Amino acid sequence: MITPTKKSIEQAHIRIEKHIHRTPIMSSQQLDKLFACNMFFKCENFQKVGAFKSRGAVNAVFSLDEKQLQNGVCTHSSGNHAQALSRAAQIKNVAAYIVMPKNAPKVKVNAVKDYGGIIHFCEANLEARESELKKVISKTKATEIHPYDNYKIIEGQATATKELLSDLDNLDYIIAPVGGGGLLAGTALANHYFGNNAKVIAAEPKNADDAFHSFKAGYIIPSEDPNTIADGLLTSLGERNFPIIREHVSQIITVNERSIKTAMHLIWERMKIIIEPSSAVVLAAIIENQEFFKNKKIALILSGGNVDLENIHEILF
Amino acid sequence: MITPTKKSIEQAHIRIEKHIHRTPIMSSQQLDKLFACNMFFKCENFQKVGAFKSRGAVNAVFSLDEKQLQNGVCTHSSGNHAQALSRAAQIKNVAAYIVMPKNAPKVKVNAVKDYGGIIHFCEANLEARESELKKVISKTKATEIHPYDNYKIIEGQATATKELLSDLDNLDYIIAPVGGGGLLAGTALANHYFGNNAKVIAAEPKNADDAFHSFKAGYIIPSEDPNTIADGLLTSLGERNFPIIREHVSQIITVNERSIKTAMHLIWERMKIIIEPSSAVVLAAIIENQEFFKNKKIALILSGGNVDLENIHEILF
Repeated sequence: MITPTKKSIEQAHIRIEKHIHRTPIMSSQQLDKLFACNMFFKCENFQKVGAFKSRGAVNAVFSLDEKQLQNGVCTHSSGNHAQALSRAAQIKNVAAYIVMPKNAPKVKVNAVKDYGGIIHFCEANLEARESELKKVISKTKATEIHPYDNYKIIEGQATATKELLSDLDNLDYIIAPVGGGGLLAGTALANHYFGNNAKVIAAEPKNADDAFHSFKAGYIIPSEDPNTIADGLLTSLGERNFPIIREHVSQIITVNERSIKTAMHLIWERMKIIIEPSSAVVLAAIIENQEFFKNKKIALILSGGNVDLENIHEILF
Repeated sequence: MITPTKKSIEQAHIRIEKHIHRTPIMSSQQLDKLFACNMFFKCENFQKVGAFKSRGAVNAVFSLDEKQLQNGVCTHSSGNHAQALSRAAQIKNVAAYIVMPKNAPKVKVNAVKDYGGIIHFCEANLEARESELKKVISKTKATEIHPYDNYKIIEGQATATKELLSDLDNLDYIIAPVGGGGLLAGTALANHYFGNNAKVIAAEPKNADDAFHSFKAGYIIPSEDPNTIADGLLTSLGERNFPIIREHVSQIITVNERSIKTAMHLIWERMKIIIEPSSAVVLAAIIENQEFFKNKKIALILSGGNVDLENIHEILF
């Protein structure tokens, strides 16, 4: 596999478009007034399985040939990628083996099962996940689909911004969250190929700021004890993602936990849509840098809407 | 004022369209699968001030002549009508006097103030509200705009279904919530004038089922001690609303509190949008009557999305 090109992202979009939603772009006069800028929210919370991850997963699975598909696909993930991969495999009628920590929330376990995913539980640490995944692969010969360190995943995630740029002109900035860097690398590449001088900015929790430090240092510095409400952004940057981010992202803004909650609260209350904490970092970046973004035209990628309503009070307050 | 006609609803739409959102219609394959029917949700939770009430309020205020407008407008309401009327008056640059019970939630008080409404507090009962409103009128000479028992309000609310019917064909049913009957009467009239054989069904909390009993009896039976989480549906049917409802609504379905919560939960979780409990009664009607609605094409009016996030856990569970 090679670094995604303009053509390969266009092909990815054609490959997946029947199986994903073209998500709406929403705006809020109240929020624009509050922050004195012009914001356009790309609502991937309305995407299939409730997150942008559907784009990459469908692209990755649908790019495999019959031989690669015949024994199914696998990954380790407790989050949206697990659901997205299970769904993509289900559409192709092949197995999806998902390694999940045994303490994963029941809603997430059930969601994966609903899409036909076959779950292998393991201890709740990265080593256990990786060794369990190796076991699964040696037993099943399934093809591993990494949640972000995979060019087909990056191409798929790029289609969100490709859509955005076909709907909006003259943007000053596009802000995307950064965790492993699948969405961010895709956003940056799509802006590079299909955009028109907008700058791509990443938003990252201060409590999980490996991308910020890696970006500054010029080499990948893994996450150490990340601890943030934005639970989709705990992972460290991927090796394929980092060079793309270095080349095409203009800066990384870190945000504190308070701003993430405020941003989430504002979006729920004013826009009447449900987003997960990881999505809220993009508005948090504006909340903490109002002078910088004043009077600018900004697209913000709302990455997903999967929250456990049981824990809703804790998340919001 | 006369009963709304096809023409007067068309004129209302032209009158208000610059000042309201044409709200989107959403659907959910997951919910369709769950209930084996085809549902289209008209999202008035995305309307200005977060509820359909903006339509009626703008129409009512913008229909007044200069003399009627000069001393401002007034109403008693602690809910969405208070905000909607304040906003409509603000656009016209006239005063809005709002009588509110002194125990009204702070969020609602602040929202009215944000739109420039002038609040008069009173004791928390209907008599106190009415006598305070009389005082306000005699002092200010403001024009009263009743929240639902007003033909201009009904015309305005009718525009939601007029939009719906220009977007959707071949509906079997349109379900709207019923409280005072402004939205329901508007829905029924719009379906009568612009529709194509769909039946209009009202959904009402069992714990506030005055409309159900009035509909059966053929005369208005006021609400007695209504007690429901759907706090926008506590009011009794209006005199102007009832004859329209009797003529153009096919049936009223009552729903229990458990179904309202389940419906709200499902819409938040699966559709990623925030609706208020009063909106949830329409899906609750389907939850309680799945055989009846099986394989039907149904439009559901989601009336609003104003919830106090502070009380979110109580509302959802």
